[in-house]
Amino acid sequence: MPKPNSRDKMLDAAITLMRGSGLTGAGINEIVRASGAPKGSVYHFFPEGKVQLATQALRVYSGRVLSFIEQALSSREEPRAKLEALFGALAQRVESGRFRQSCAVGTVSLDLDSDLESLRVVLEGMLAEWQALIARHFAFETVRETRSFAGMIVTCIEGAYIRCRAEASSEPFVEAGRWLAQLVPSAAKPARSRRRRTG
Amino acid sequence: MPKPNSRDKMLDAAITLMRGSGLTGAGINEIVRASGAPKGSVYHFFPEGKVQLATQALRVYSGRVLSFIEQALSSREEPRAKLEALFGALAQRVESGRFRQSCAVGTVSLDLDSDLESLRVVLEGMLAEWQALIARHFAFETVRETRSFAGMIVTCIEGAYIRCRAEASSEPFVEAGRWLAQLVPSAAKPARSRRRRTG
Repeated sequence: MPKPNSRDKMLDAAITLMRGSGLTGAGINEIVRASGAPKGSVYHFFPEGKVQLATQALRVYSGRVLSFIEQALSSREEPRAKLEALFGALAQRVESGRFRQSCAVGTVSLDLDSDLESLRVVLEGMLAEWQALIARHFAFETVRETRSFAGMIVTCIEGAYIRCRAEASSEPFVEAGRWLAQLVPSAAKPARSRRRRTG
Repeated sequence: MPKPNSRDKMLDAAITLMRGSGLTGAGINEIVRASGAPKGSVYHFFPEGKVQLATQALRVYSGRVLSFIEQALSSREEPRAKLEALFGALAQRVESGRFRQSCAVGTVSLDLDSDLESLRVVLEGMLAEWQALIARHFAFETVRETRSFAGMIVTCIEGAYIRCRAEASSEPFVEAGRWLAQLVPSAAKPARSRRRRTG
């Protein structure tokens, strides 16, 4: 009977491997090697194999990203300060991964092919969740514009990760945060006041 | 004696495979299969193997990207119109690849590990060339700011590709172009007038 924590170890190993080089880097053999879990337990916990394991690992990962974003954005009240906090935290994150770990949703998105449509839908849903969370922290004139700005933030996070890895620098995050701050209307209300106003 | 066009076919196949899923997707066997070139000719043209082939394919690819960007940005005079043209062209490009082909520099950047430092430097150089080309089309108050804005454009291109693939939509490009246009000072001069002014 495989130990329950083998499952967590395999999911963590899959996350690390996917953050390094996407789905193609997170083969069953690599996950078994990196997690130290017995190979038999892969099929015990993930009878459908690699894509099932990857999907569950991405769900764990996406939950962590949501916490990370929420914590950074909630740390400040003023919209520009929120952006600075978020992109500063991302800069630290990519530094601590020595520019070799990025976003698992980004890396796996760039491995998608026509066989992986079910996984694509999962990734799309995760990006939408991140966007919705971010949107709650900003208030442009229309809900549509606020959502679009949150989408632009997600775009910048994913793109900055690519540049950070290629340039071995965290500057692209800092730079993106600075430019995005110029787009925030000075009259924008932080999430709390907006919620109060709209009921 | 391998035919000279085998080399071009292999480079083209490598570009397509890398745009699909990065370096891990562009193995020698996959390139041989996709190009129809005889396997022996891989080592004739690329005696150092996969990374040499990938590096040369990326050089060809980067040259094409430079032409693509230059053509889009040169098609308009006004800075905001330039952004619209560039991001509109990128939206068309990701649509024509049915959201499965993105930027080879982006996909390969997300496959980098410590063994690939020489390749990382190549990718860094390519991103810097794209940034320098883009910077020639915009004029902020300082050269530093102009270069940073060009870097932000590169960030948005790479990030939008990720979202386009996950969301099977070209909207992230259109959205990024719209937000970036708000950052361009209305007094910015197109490249030609600036060159004239600065000699």
